[in-house]
Amino acid sequence: MTFELGENQYGKAEVRLVRVDRGPQAHGITDLNVTTTLAGDLTATHLTGDNTGVLPTDTQKNTVHAFARDGIGEIEEFALRLARHFVDSAPAITRARVRIEQYGWERIPATGHSFTRTAGTRTASAAYDGTTAWVVSGVEGVTVLNTTGSEFHGFPRDRYTTLAETSDRILATDVTARWRHADPTRTDWAASFAGAKDRLLNAFAATYSHSLQQTLHSMGQYVLSGDDGLAEARLALPNKHHFLVDLQPFDLDNPQQVYQVADRPYGLIEGTVHRTGAPDPGLAWW
Amino acid sequence: MTFELGENQYGKAEVRLVRVDRGPQAHGITDLNVTTTLAGDLTATHLTGDNTGVLPTDTQKNTVHAFARDGIGEIEEFALRLARHFVDSAPAITRARVRIEQYGWERIPATGHSFTRTAGTRTASAAYDGTTAWVVSGVEGVTVLNTTGSEFHGFPRDRYTTLAETSDRILATDVTARWRHADPTRTDWAASFAGAKDRLLNAFAATYSHSLQQTLHSMGQYVLSGDDGLAEARLALPNKHHFLVDLQPFDLDNPQQVYQVADRPYGLIEGTVHRTGAPDPGLAWW
Amino acid sequence: MTFELGENQYGKAEVRLVRVDRGPQAHGITDLNVTTTLAGDLTATHLTGDNTGVLPTDTQKNTVHAFARDGIGEIEEFALRLARHFVDSAPAITRARVRIEQYGWERIPATGHSFTRTAGTRTASAAYDGTTAWVVSGVEGVTVLNTTGSEFHGFPRDRYTTLAETSDRILATDVTARWRHADPTRTDWAASFAGAKDRLLNAFAATYSHSLQQTLHSMGQYVLSGDDGLAEARLALPNKHHFLVDLQPFDLDNPQQVYQVADRPYGLIEGTVHRTGAPDPGLAWW
Amino acid sequence: MTFELGENQYGKAEVRLVRVDRGPQAHGITDLNVTTTLAGDLTATHLTGDNTGVLPTDTQKNTVHAFARDGIGEIEEFALRLARHFVDSAPAITRARVRIEQYGWERIPATGHSFTRTAGTRTASAAYDGTTAWVVSGVEGVTVLNTTGSEFHGFPRDRYTTLAETSDRILATDVTARWRHADPTRTDWAASFAGAKDRLLNAFAATYSHSLQQTLHSMGQYVLSGDDGLAEARLALPNKHHFLVDLQPFDLDNPQQVYQVADRPYGLIEGTVHRTGAPDPGLAWW
Repeated sequence: MTFELGENQYGKAEVRLVRVDRGPQAHGITDLNVTTTLAGDLTATHLTGDNTGVLPTDTQKNTVHAFARDGIGEIEEFALRLARHFVDSAPAITRARVRIEQYGWERIPATGHSFTRTAGTRTASAAYDGTTAWVVSGVEGVTVLNTTGSEFHGFPRDRYTTLAETSDRILATDVTARWRHADPTRTDWAASFAGAKDRLLNAFAATYSHSLQQTLHSMGQYVLSGDDGLAEARLALPNKHHFLVDLQPFDLDNPQQVYQVADRPYGLIEGTVHRTGAPDPGLAWW
Repeated sequence: MTFELGENQYGKAEVRLVRVDRGPQAHGITDLNVTTTLAGDLTATHLTGDNTGVLPTDTQKNTVHAFARDGIGEIEEFALRLARHFVDSAPAITRARVRIEQYGWERIPATGHSFTRTAGTRTASAAYDGTTAWVVSGVEGVTVLNTTGSEFHGFPRDRYTTLAETSDRILATDVTARWRHADPTRTDWAASFAGAKDRLLNAFAATYSHSLQQTLHSMGQYVLSGDDGLAEARLALPNKHHFLVDLQPFDLDNPQQVYQVADRPYGLIEGTVHRTGAPDPGLAWW
Repeated sequence: MTFELGENQYGKAEVRLVRVDRGPQAHGITDLNVTTTLAGDLTATHLTGDNTGVLPTDTQKNTVHAFARDGIGEIEEFALRLARHFVDSAPAITRARVRIEQYGWERIPATGHSFTRTAGTRTASAAYDGTTAWVVSGVEGVTVLNTTGSEFHGFPRDRYTTLAETSDRILATDVTARWRHADPTRTDWAASFAGAKDRLLNAFAATYSHSLQQTLHSMGQYVLSGDDGLAEARLALPNKHHFLVDLQPFDLDNPQQVYQVADRPYGLIEGTVHRTGAPDPGLAWW
Repeated sequence: MTFELGENQYGKAEVRLVRVDRGPQAHGITDLNVTTTLAGDLTATHLTGDNTGVLPTDTQKNTVHAFARDGIGEIEEFALRLARHFVDSAPAITRARVRIEQYGWERIPATGHSFTRTAGTRTASAAYDGTTAWVVSGVEGVTVLNTTGSEFHGFPRDRYTTLAETSDRILATDVTARWRHADPTRTDWAASFAGAKDRLLNAFAATYSHSLQQTLHSMGQYVLSGDDGLAEARLALPNKHHFLVDLQPFDLDNPQQVYQVADRPYGLIEGTVHRTGAPDPGLAWW
């Protein structure tokens, strides 16, 4: 054969789902975006269109709906239940990954059934290979900004360097962070998430920064340091540039007051911090 | 002449600006997106490219930056200052409108200079014609949801009707609301905004709804009722449909627990409530 | 009463629909996004939730689907049919507007049933009040660029002006243009659209420009000039700035070769050209 | 040490750049979005904020601008030049990756300097480690649709299956495809790209499909089969669902004419085809 099928996977992306829990005093809502991804021996459908092994993506969507009827729990649990189900029930499927985004809502106090959406997304991903499970938690779309406490200097200068050194700049980013759990059988997902998110924000705020890399590293360390069950943290931090506007043409000074917010280009800093001796990630980052 | 120039206007859209106020104890930030729009006798540039009367949009951007140096204040004030300036200083310009979106931030308590962005946008628009000014305040991107307290029935049925009547549905919307001030010389913009937004959310929550129109009308009334300085409210409310999933094929009931969240199509309800005898809107809604 | 209901309207937004016409030799596709908007005496639902007059937005969606079964024709015709239907059949509805976006596709020659999507969107809007109909055609998302033939100078300078005059710049914009038909009973919609779009592009290309306003005016004139059935053209043209990069710090000249493409802010030029003695627009621009 | 820095990288994302080539008869434009990513020994900046090794992302942007002055050529060449430069000139940098998106434009014939933007994006990525270079070409945002020639049946059914089997459905997708070159020293990038894109579209059109996986595999084979210099193709194909509308409630049949276009959820099919004995990918897919 001249050509061979290589790695492949498929699934249903972005199943948008709300579950309402109707308690006697107040209702709760869980607002999710669920993406399922399956892999296994899918050669037949690729080569001949024989779908014997292809659990339809429509069925995957239905399964998400049906499992939500039994309760969601924390999104890590829901992702795990779904990932295990697909591998355990679909003969051709040997690996499954379920990613969930959870949108936040807070109560409007006027009633027990009214909510307004908050910023930032909680995320979880579970992978399962029929034997072992892996769980990663995280956040997306958490935008943070320090008005001071950030410097950037000492960098190399070459023919193409024009950037001035600075000892005081705005540092702003949209945090995408994920942290890998050492053990998928832990059960304190809610507390673990709340703690990790809190440490992440505090690390951003409290780190006196000489580079966004330093801030990233500090955020990764903080996330891990407060929870022995966390093995590794991965962060992607766009550097959302705020440029001090030159007001001299208008005979005005600008004592670090007025900044232009740039869209593109932006810096993009990505990095990983792991606990020494952390277990192998396996399929955690699939 | 066979063809004539009709209504026209121009300006600079989306000047993204952050101002930092560096107090001794803590910093404050004001994060804005400013759009300026000018009109006047601009026939020459349209017909012959004679730009004698065309204050460049680049200059408009510079003006926004320079005025921010003197302080922003509330966004209604900043919009008014800018609108007045353009009409008063540019000879060919007879009307100006300045629209501002303000993004919300809350403090990360760890420091006095750290912030995280919140959901929802505060808006203001000021118009000025050389004599009179008009101010409109509002919100955008405020997503709200009631898990109960919403019915929809009694509607007409024709050949194309398939919708079932319901006495209990989820009601969810992204609120875009604007309210017109009767008097642009008021100064309590911050308190007025806080009250109006609060009443808007409470009206959404507290109104037992037989249609999104009824909720809209109630929201408009609530906004106006708490502030004698408000003449009119305009709302645009997409009906973000949440459809109860049919779980019967899986031998499961669904006692109003699991909902599919639809993207498109969506209902769109738009309406206005005004105070009886409200002054003419003039250019308020330009 | 202290508060009164003012203008209001409602409908179904963004009904995404594809119709396939399966000819013996080749298939055709029509890919639409339809938004229906109705108005009339809707006081009852706003004030008391009495929905007697409220044709559900779900029914509006169904009607779009059902009418598509009979064939779409040109989108102006389809919009007219729908607008007339809603006013003529729903007792409480006295005005209807139907807006349609049509996405372009071109054939992949390998088969008679394969297509690839093209850039730019054709638009139509029809309004009807029970007696009179109005039709507007247009385009959106047509991005055009001239590498030369554009100057900008002679503008007023004030304290806040820093922009240099230029006798040769890139001019680029995303065209949103709409043109009003004098008579909704015309039937040559396809030819009219093709001609208008062609003239629009040619006007952009062929107009030696001293301002984007001059280009806009020329585009409006060209559109109208080739079709006696067109009464008025409205254009919104963002000035997508391309700034010549300063390469001097790298000991390089930049003979109008390398440009940075800016996102925000951008100029926004809006204007209207109408035929002298054009009929009153009525609800055309609703 | 309890925590360790793991994999990390940084760079400048989305440098938006237009280059104009001003020929005597006609101008040409090259419209790019360039993202540079560097890696190496960056421990110091992460741990202590020592930026000795950190070539600023601002300098990376400047370098892109300066290199564009010398001409772009094909985007694969430009990406390679930049990747080599960063590794060869920045002491701490041991690996570089440059990704480029190129937006298409076609001429408006009225002049030699006027253009309108077309759909779909050409992509290239070059990676370099100081010794070896890798090049990947591709497309994004190419939306294609077959109105027939697509079946889906024979799939397994479980408790959660409701999908009906079909022997004739619409198949539509937004193609993201990338193909790895075996040898970065080839020079026929333009011809290679044109051929690969052509084969990709023809494969989509001409493949009688029993699953989107089968179509994907065929597309991968076609891409490789026409160009011995291609080692591997990777595709990601969302299944953009078009559901036949049930018109029976309106006493209408629907002989595969009227389809609802769904947004979410969507299927997502991802797969790889490689030439037997293809060289190791190295950093090609970094």
